[in-house]
Amino acid sequence: MGTTQLESVPEPKYWHLKTVLSEALDSEFSVGEILPNERDLAARFGVARATLRQALEQLELEGRLQRRRGVGTTVAPPRMGVAVGSRQHAWPDAGDDWQAVDCTVTAPPAAVAAALETGPDEAVHTVRRSRVSHGQPVAAELLYVPASSVPALSAIDAPSGPARARGVLRELQRLELDGRESAVELGSARAEDAKELDRLPGAPVLVVTTRFLVEGRVAALSVATYRADTCRLTFGDAGGVVIDEGPERRAS
Amino acid sequence: MGTTQLESVPEPKYWHLKTVLSEALDSEFSVGEILPNERDLAARFGVARATLRQALEQLELEGRLQRRRGVGTTVAPPRMGVAVGSRQHAWPDAGDDWQAVDCTVTAPPAAVAAALETGPDEAVHTVRRSRVSHGQPVAAELLYVPASSVPALSAIDAPSGPARARGVLRELQRLELDGRESAVELGSARAEDAKELDRLPGAPVLVVTTRFLVEGRVAALSVATYRADTCRLTFGDAGGVVIDEGPERRAS
Repeated sequence: MGTTQLESVPEPKYWHLKTVLSEALDSEFSVGEILPNERDLAARFGVARATLRQALEQLELEGRLQRRRGVGTTVAPPRMGVAVGSRQHAWPDAGDDWQAVDCTVTAPPAAVAAALETGPDEAVHTVRRSRVSHGQPVAAELLYVPASSVPALSAIDAPSGPARARGVLRELQRLELDGRESAVELGSARAEDAKELDRLPGAPVLVVTTRFLVEGRVAALSVATYRADTCRLTFGDAGGVVIDEGPERRAS
Repeated sequence: MGTTQLESVPEPKYWHLKTVLSEALDSEFSVGEILPNERDLAARFGVARATLRQALEQLELEGRLQRRRGVGTTVAPPRMGVAVGSRQHAWPDAGDDWQAVDCTVTAPPAAVAAALETGPDEAVHTVRRSRVSHGQPVAAELLYVPASSVPALSAIDAPSGPARARGVLRELQRLELDGRESAVELGSARAEDAKELDRLPGAPVLVVTTRFLVEGRVAALSVATYRADTCRLTFGDAGGVVIDEGPERRAS
């Protein structure tokens, strides 16, 4: 690069402020407490409001602060650990924290159809579910299931709605699962998901895409949108110790 | 809530613009192409620059755009799938994409010490590694290893530096691993990690914390910071199909 490392990445002004604010949060505020307004905070730390706002955004990214409309900026509780793919060889969880919202037969987005290797005319059940943890919405999921994966789905089941969704999940679990693969990436909440998650459209979310494999093909595909502000997603099968604080907080 | 769902979450102006811009990216631009400057873009879409900037931030969150200093805003290639914990029962990967940078003996942050259940006087080796994929830096890792986990680490090894780091990893792999657990959460890049990742401090990152369990205790703890703009983290052991596009792109 030709320059020294220090010169190559100048430290922005909000970064220093963030560190100072973070220490103030630790020493002066408790969880749930409402922060003073931006004008007062900017005055206290002797910075422009734009700089303050950037620092607050950083702390929100790190899960230290929550901004809620009509309430203001509050000190966030530690993020919840939410198990995702805790057992490698398991169908979608159907535990108490998941709730089937709806089930429709729709043409899936092109890339979902490609991943499922469904033909243009094959029906795909789209199951919509939501996940609640500790009384708060944490995830909105779309589970795509080609009709060929649940051939025995009977007309006895409701044609749509939560009962239909449960029927699809029940049939799916009759298949012998070879494995599942997940990917996690950063995204922004689509309008529909944002509503369910009680966030504004565009809020940062963690998108978990899971492919359920049966006999070498993708028998179902789940796209689950988790709140990035309140959740840390846990993977693994070892059970055990929970670390209360996020790594950023630990490492700083 | 008393209001209809539509009313309860008003759609911000930038959200509509984001959708329009996203379509324009698909139809008019190719990967790597530089976008017109903000003034021209704002004029073309008839919006204020603040609104434009919010929409661009959204698209950056979703991995559609990259902002690089000195270059401008370019259309991003699809995110790389980066395997994280592909085998449940494995020690830290020591593949070609990982490079040992340094190894020091330092007092770990308090919460790391708590997770490792080390006493205040126990030495902890801190191994710093970086991960490169397709020629780009994707992750910066701190691996904390209590001295008691690697008792046979000999004085023959270098006292610090990459050689020492490799010595610690080699000793660690002699232990029989019971399991590993990972958690993924959103964070912002600390200054030191940002340099390694070629990002500005505060850039959104995915922080992967992995606990390596031996005989019921945490024998090592890894905190790895992945670039959120270019990476999708993959979990699972089924191998196979790669989905090129992110779920947001697929689902929209």
